[in-house]
Amino acid sequence: MTEPTEREGLTYEGAGVSIAAQDRALVEVKRLARTTFTPGVLSEIGSFGGLFTLEPDNPSGTVLVASADGVGTKLKVAQMAGVHGTVGEDLVNHCVNDILVQGARPLFFLDYFASGHLEPGVAVQVIEGLARGCRANGCALLGGETAEMPGFYQPGEYDLAGFIVGSCRRDRLLRREGVAVGDLLVALPSSGLHTNGYSLARRVFFERLGLATESEVAGLGRTVVDVLLAVHRSYLAAVAPLLDEGLVTSAAHITGGGIPDNLPRALPAGVGAEILLDSWDEPALFRLLREAGRIPEDDMRRTFNLGVGMILVVAPARLGAVLERLVPHGPGWVIGRCVAGAGVRFVGERRA
Amino acid sequence: MTEPTEREGLTYEGAGVSIAAQDRALVEVKRLARTTFTPGVLSEIGSFGGLFTLEPDNPSGTVLVASADGVGTKLKVAQMAGVHGTVGEDLVNHCVNDILVQGARPLFFLDYFASGHLEPGVAVQVIEGLARGCRANGCALLGGETAEMPGFYQPGEYDLAGFIVGSCRRDRLLRREGVAVGDLLVALPSSGLHTNGYSLARRVFFERLGLATESEVAGLGRTVVDVLLAVHRSYLAAVAPLLDEGLVTSAAHITGGGIPDNLPRALPAGVGAEILLDSWDEPALFRLLREAGRIPEDDMRRTFNLGVGMILVVAPARLGAVLERLVPHGPGWVIGRCVAGAGVRFVGERRA
Repeated sequence: MTEPTEREGLTYEGAGVSIAAQDRALVEVKRLARTTFTPGVLSEIGSFGGLFTLEPDNPSGTVLVASADGVGTKLKVAQMAGVHGTVGEDLVNHCVNDILVQGARPLFFLDYFASGHLEPGVAVQVIEGLARGCRANGCALLGGETAEMPGFYQPGEYDLAGFIVGSCRRDRLLRREGVAVGDLLVALPSSGLHTNGYSLARRVFFERLGLATESEVAGLGRTVVDVLLAVHRSYLAAVAPLLDEGLVTSAAHITGGGIPDNLPRALPAGVGAEILLDSWDEPALFRLLREAGRIPEDDMRRTFNLGVGMILVVAPARLGAVLERLVPHGPGWVIGRCVAGAGVRFVGERRA
Repeated sequence: MTEPTEREGLTYEGAGVSIAAQDRALVEVKRLARTTFTPGVLSEIGSFGGLFTLEPDNPSGTVLVASADGVGTKLKVAQMAGVHGTVGEDLVNHCVNDILVQGARPLFFLDYFASGHLEPGVAVQVIEGLARGCRANGCALLGGETAEMPGFYQPGEYDLAGFIVGSCRRDRLLRREGVAVGDLLVALPSSGLHTNGYSLARRVFFERLGLATESEVAGLGRTVVDVLLAVHRSYLAAVAPLLDEGLVTSAAHITGGGIPDNLPRALPAGVGAEILLDSWDEPALFRLLREAGRIPEDDMRRTFNLGVGMILVVAPARLGAVLERLVPHGPGWVIGRCVAGAGVRFVGERRA
């Protein structure tokens, strides 16, 4: 990890996360995974969730949608602050969203909790968060593994990963192939950083700004721990009614890589996206990170969700119904549209 | 962690793993998990795998059987030796066995690979092992998460966890309720330590005996790395034909906690097990660990598999057929029987 000087801007790669190396490994991982595929597999690795069916010949059969995820270095903030009750909910909600963008509702969840020396009190707080998240999403906590690995984790540290399985009728799966040029992009607000960009955000808060977990963040009126541990929002309640009515064509969960890396995963070849920067109010947290960390705009966009936790791709004729159904669940912003091309183009200026 | 003096015997608790603390936390985890259960859940946490059905009212419907597991500190040996190609296979086979003892065959697997700084070459070796294990078990590697967490793991270290989903017809599930006093216990040989007891085994090999990974182990004719990284055996090929014919009543995967903790999970209330110590040849590796580590017998039994990786519970009338079907897959040893009572009683003396 290269330590930038005080004058330099912080970047995600500088904070020690090499997205390019991850991408190179992912190509090989996809190739290896393909060698294992059986007739039940309906997806490629790299989708938000993997698709598997027990009825390969049934076009309206049940498809299982599965995803694995971790909490990342948001855990470090929880461990610094001694607050262990929310990271489980973060993880469940993250996993729920990953399969929701394929059209699936959660069935069950399993966790992996690893530490050097098991502190039962901490483990129970973490599992309480998992259980709360599972109950809120109608998802059974079906099992898990609690690993004690002496000498592997620092005292007081632990890692937490989760695995979710949901289901969807095969003819109800969200498919990027159904997206057309002219379709609209409806953004659902995030509740904060969700679970991405913490290596960079921690450097800004704890190194650049020199704050402690209990410090109040200037301009936000909340403490660092409240800001950084805000629970990753589950979009199940907002989006499930839309799926029931077939109102959504495709969807993207905005996680690591931000809008530029995640939205294209919801679009077919030949279709790109144009995002209007003045179409939503970026939360003050992101402005603070940008300015205090002197973070280049491209790094901001590829590291943080910028206030947008999920993007729904909606045909113009269905937009009214979508926005109406979303009302009880908070706002939905039309932030752009699908265009001929590839990738994501940001247009205009952010609102001041 | 208390450092025992050279004179003292090594124990699993002394090596830093507190099974009692794990047990206390597990009680609370079970209670919390129960608060999340939906009508599809057919099992309690604490089974080898969790059971979930999409058809709660269908007595012969498909049941999904899911399990999460890690590799534990066997990873430390792989990392010391720079051998990363086998731990993935260990993990897949461990997970396959965990659902096999419920009667299920694997459908798909997802992994969680976490390191401080991603070394693509190492990650790809690990995934190669996962893919090899998946192919050998007819199980699709459906997805996974590669997490890069700066400052969380030591340079060169990583953690690896896995998640498997298999299926079984509900009326074909292995159920401990079907076990009767007088049923016989058929042991299937392990290939080594499998994935348990590594905190203790590493202390014996690297501290007590002062060996290096490439040292030859006296009396075994193999190097430390060959002995300690022997791949956890998958019992799918041996056991699946027995399941097809309904020859097995119940089964236990012998993992952490050894025979005393795992076999009772396959037995109903009121039924215990009597194990005849002279009924199999304990592999020399375990004798070496016992003697070099001066490990008390109870710790040996609760830490290591002692050469027995899986135990099948078989009705006497089916024993002949079971042993015959096992022949092409290596030996099966009748090591004892079910008795009235509870827990496991070891009888007689080990073969010299």
